[in-house]
Parts: sequence; C-alpha cells; structure tokens
Amino acid sequence: MEKFEVHILGCGSALPTTRHFASSQVINFREKLFMIDCGEGTQMQMRQSKLKFSRLNHIFISHLHGDHCFGLIGLISTFGLLKRTATLYIHAPSELQKILQPQLDFFCKEISYKIIFQAVDTYKQQIIYEDRSLIVHTIPLKHRIPCCGYIFEEKQSPNHLIKEKIDFYHIPIYEFNKIKSGSNYIDPQGNIVLNNELTRPALPARKYAYCSDTIYQPNIVKQINGVDTLYHEATFSSSDEARAKETFHTTALQAGVLAQKAKVKKLILGHFSARYEDESILLNEAKQVFNNTFLAKENLCFKV
Amino acid sequence: MEKFEVHILGCGSALPTTRHFASSQVINFREKLFMIDCGEGTQMQMRQSKLKFSRLNHIFISHLHGDHCFGLIGLISTFGLLKRTATLYIHAPSELQKILQPQLDFFCKEISYKIIFQAVDTYKQQIIYEDRSLIVHTIPLKHRIPCCGYIFEEKQSPNHLIKEKIDFYHIPIYEFNKIKSGSNYIDPQGNIVLNNELTRPALPARKYAYCSDTIYQPNIVKQINGVDTLYHEATFSSSDEARAKETFHTTALQAGVLAQKAKVKKLILGHFSARYEDESILLNEAKQVFNNTFLAKENLCFKV
Repeated sequence: MEKFEVHILGCGSALPTTRHFASSQVINFREKLFMIDCGEGTQMQMRQSKLKFSRLNHIFISHLHGDHCFGLIGLISTFGLLKRTATLYIHAPSELQKILQPQLDFFCKEISYKIIFQAVDTYKQQIIYEDRSLIVHTIPLKHRIPCCGYIFEEKQSPNHLIKEKIDFYHIPIYEFNKIKSGSNYIDPQGNIVLNNELTRPALPARKYAYCSDTIYQPNIVKQINGVDTLYHEATFSSSDEARAKETFHTTALQAGVLAQKAKVKKLILGHFSARYEDESILLNEAKQVFNNTFLAKENLCFKV
Repeated sequence: MEKFEVHILGCGSALPTTRHFASSQVINFREKLFMIDCGEGTQMQMRQSKLKFSRLNHIFISHLHGDHCFGLIGLISTFGLLKRTATLYIHAPSELQKILQPQLDFFCKEISYKIIFQAVDTYKQQIIYEDRSLIVHTIPLKHRIPCCGYIFEEKQSPNHLIKEKIDFYHIPIYEFNKIKSGSNYIDPQGNIVLNNELTRPALPARKYAYCSDTIYQPNIVKQINGVDTLYHEATFSSSDEARAKETFHTTALQAGVLAQKAKVKKLILGHFSARYEDESILLNEAKQVFNNTFLAKENLCFKV
C-alpha cells in the first residue's frame, strides 16, 4: 500500500510543558511531505522524527494563534541556510503574510528560494490543493479567530490489471488505461472479455481529517464522514466543559461523539491543555463513546 | 554563598539538530533570573530547567540572528497567557523592536504587562543594568552583524561583622554600616577598636562573561580578565579555522587561548556547529591550552 502516514510533531496547547511541543504535524503521502500547523520547535521536531526538510513543499496553517505558527520563521530561515531552491507554499489565513513579511525582510534577506502565500478562506469548504493523487479540502471550524481544519483525501486509484490475463489475451499496451478505468476488452476477432476478468479492484482511497482548534461542532460530521483517521482537538476533559465552551475548544468526550457520529475508523486526540498531567483521563472519556481512540504523542507516527 | 548560577537552555548554532536547542541561557543571581539570548524553544527549555517565569524581568539579546531571538515572541505570548503584570525589559540592538512590534500588535493585543525595549549599542563597553548587588556590562564583539557579549558582575559585599565582637564591645546598631565599610569603632570612653578586629572580609565578588557570536577577538581579554566563568562560543574545531574566520566565529582552540590569556577560572564552550556529532573534539582542543574547560549542555547548571 502506498505510504500515507501522519507524524505528530507537537500536540500540546498554548502553554509550554515538559510533555508537549506546540501544534504541528507532517503528513507523508507517498514520500511527499505536507505540514499542518507549525508551532514553536517544529523544525527541531522534524529532525527528531527524521523527516527530510527537502521533501516539504506545502505548509497548511489552521489559524493564527502563536502555538500554531510561531515555528514558521525558524523553519523558513533554516530552509535558507540549507540553500533550498524549491518554492515553498504556505496556505494560511491572509494576515499571515503581513506578519511574516517584516521578519522575512530582516532575517531572510538572501534567501535562495521563493515563498508563495496562498490565502485560505477559513469560512468555506473548498479544495485548496490538488495533484495527481491527492486532494486537500478545508473544513470550516469555529474558534475565537478564523480557523479551519483540513482533509487530506487520496484519489481513488484505477483498478489493477491482472497480469496473467493481460498476457493470456495478448492485450496491447494502448488498451491498458481504458481497461483500468473499467472498459471491457474486445479482441481483433470481436470477442468481448469482461472487465472484471481482467482487473482487480484497487484499495479504497483513504482520508485523513485534522480538526484543531474548534468548539464542539456537530455540523462537521457530514464533511468528515467515514474518514480513516480523524485527528481532533480534545483540549479539555468533560469536567472542564464550561471552560471548553468559553474558550472555543472541545472536550475529549465531544471528540469521541464526533468520531462515532461520523463513523470514522480511528480517532487521535490532541492539543492537550497543560492542566492534565495524566492524559489517560481524556483517552478514557473518548473511549466511552468511541473505542478506537488514541492519544497523540510527539514523534509518534500513525498510518492513515 | 549567595546564588549565582548559569542555566544553559540551548547551546547549538543556527541549524537544528537532535542534540541542541538554539542559544539561550538564564542566570540565577540571588533568585532573580536574567536571560541571555532567546532562540526558538527557549520557553520549553525554561520549563525543562524548572525556572520560574515570574522571576525573569530582564532579557539581554547579543545580536539579531534568528537562533538568538526567535524564541522571544513565544515567551512574551506565554507571559501574557500567564497574566504576568511585571514589566519586562528587553535589552537588544534597536532594530528588534521594529521587528517584534507587528507580531506583538497581532498576537499580544490584550497583554497584561508592559514591555520596555532598551536599545543596546553593541560597539561600546558600557553598563546597561545595575541594581544593589549586580552590574551588567556590554562586551563589544565582532560578528557578521552588530553583536555584543555581556558581563554579569556581582558588586563587592561589605565586610561581615563578627557577632561576638560586636556584642563584646556593645556596639550600637547605627554604627554597623560604617564598620562594614571599613571604619574603626570608637567607644563612648574614646577607646579605638580596629576594624579588622570587628570584621571578616566578604567573599570576593564574582563575574560571569558571555561571548557569542564572535570571530576570535584577542582584544576582549582586558575586559574579561579574571572572570570566574567565561562562556565562549566555539562553533568550530581548529580543522575548520578558515570557515570560522569566514563566518566570524571562533574555534575551540581559540576560545581556550582567550581563557588562558584572560586568566579566567573556568571556561564553558558553546554554540556548537551542527557538523560535530561528537563535541569532545572541541573540548580536547580547548583543554590543550586551558584545562578547566567544560562543554555546555542543555539544562545543565554551572555555579559561577
């Protein structure tokens, strides 16, 4: 199966602790790296997770709170020191460029590569990235400031050809793409060979959803329905539900409810408040309603 | 002896490694904390070293390369989240304020405390901080951009009174300060008691010098002469001396020579280039000329 993994670089919330780094993760999709959020310390965490800086071309920022973007300038600087040449794309709410530009002008004067800021409208569901095999959509979230999540959706691969049958019927190469897409084969004598004799269905396309930071938002269920892996913030425990509401965050139980309603396959909790020394309280809460739940942890890697 | 310690928070150079954080250290002088440099990750490292955020009121920045100041915005933000009220003083080259202000305006709108930027002229030897027991001087250094080091100098304590003698001669309290400062005591009958019978000399005042980043600069020897502890950058080994010169850095051997010439008591090497997996090569080099040398290390604490 082609690689589709999520590396957790940081899953704490705003206050620093000795247990967690600020938010950041890297998706390795077929050896291309995509970053979501870039809190302070992200570049050190990339080294720790042995991720190659040169494989990262796209960074997606959920919102402009410091614990989700203070690591950008350090990472951008380091790319400069490493003499990067590939363009770096930063997908983020539009104000980011205004804030970063004075820093870039001062610290990264002689940078060897181009940075392109792509403004993200956090209020709309839309496709903001697409290549031959991957689509990235935004998920509008509701936080104290404009914020969105991201869905990474693998494109459905065509059916696989069954080599023995292809050889048996002497099918010419120029017919392969049509057959992969579902056509039957008609041989020179006019005989029809049905597609299901020639192909094996590809594995179903996989989806990963990242939702942080947000108040409990049941209306995202439709969009994240059936994803393979859902990373959802669980800043607080149910006992702090009032605080969660007030600060536009989610409890672990609420994250579990979303996972259950959306019938996802796996739930990863993250963005933990500094107040919980023992996060198993959050895990157990979510597991009450959705059993296949895991706690995020720095430098852990999950398969989607 | 009153506390005078240095906590190393980061002693790597610009490129991130899994071994080091970027430059930062905290001086604990009689339970007041003073920070020198503030690279990315400094706030996490303060937690790791169990240093109390509320005890820190002064930050000194040596120069405006990212690995010496990218951690400021995160630390300042966190102070805000912690509802700090005490004024924070940042002593740094004047451009820092211009670069930080747009970030402060965006990320720290509702900050609960005041920040005062004190412009440091890196080209002059001058006193930039003074209180009852401590003086901080600048050390002009020579790097690719304006840069200075800092000397933390304890003020000489007055002599200690010998309690038994004070009681024996029935010396009144209002005479104590004069005697501590060296005066003899004349009793009501006009008898003179010599000062050295009444007092014991205080311990000699201690000095700590921080020199990073800089090309080998023998002319600082006069200023750092006889300090108890010298932290000096040793970015490169002698085998990379040409590279050191080109990038305005110092080799470990050169740092040892400076320590020897300045007759310091202890040398701590830091600001290690990412290229040395094993830094004992740097240690051994400096020890050739100055034996009492140590390698800096994250979360290590040295007594001055």
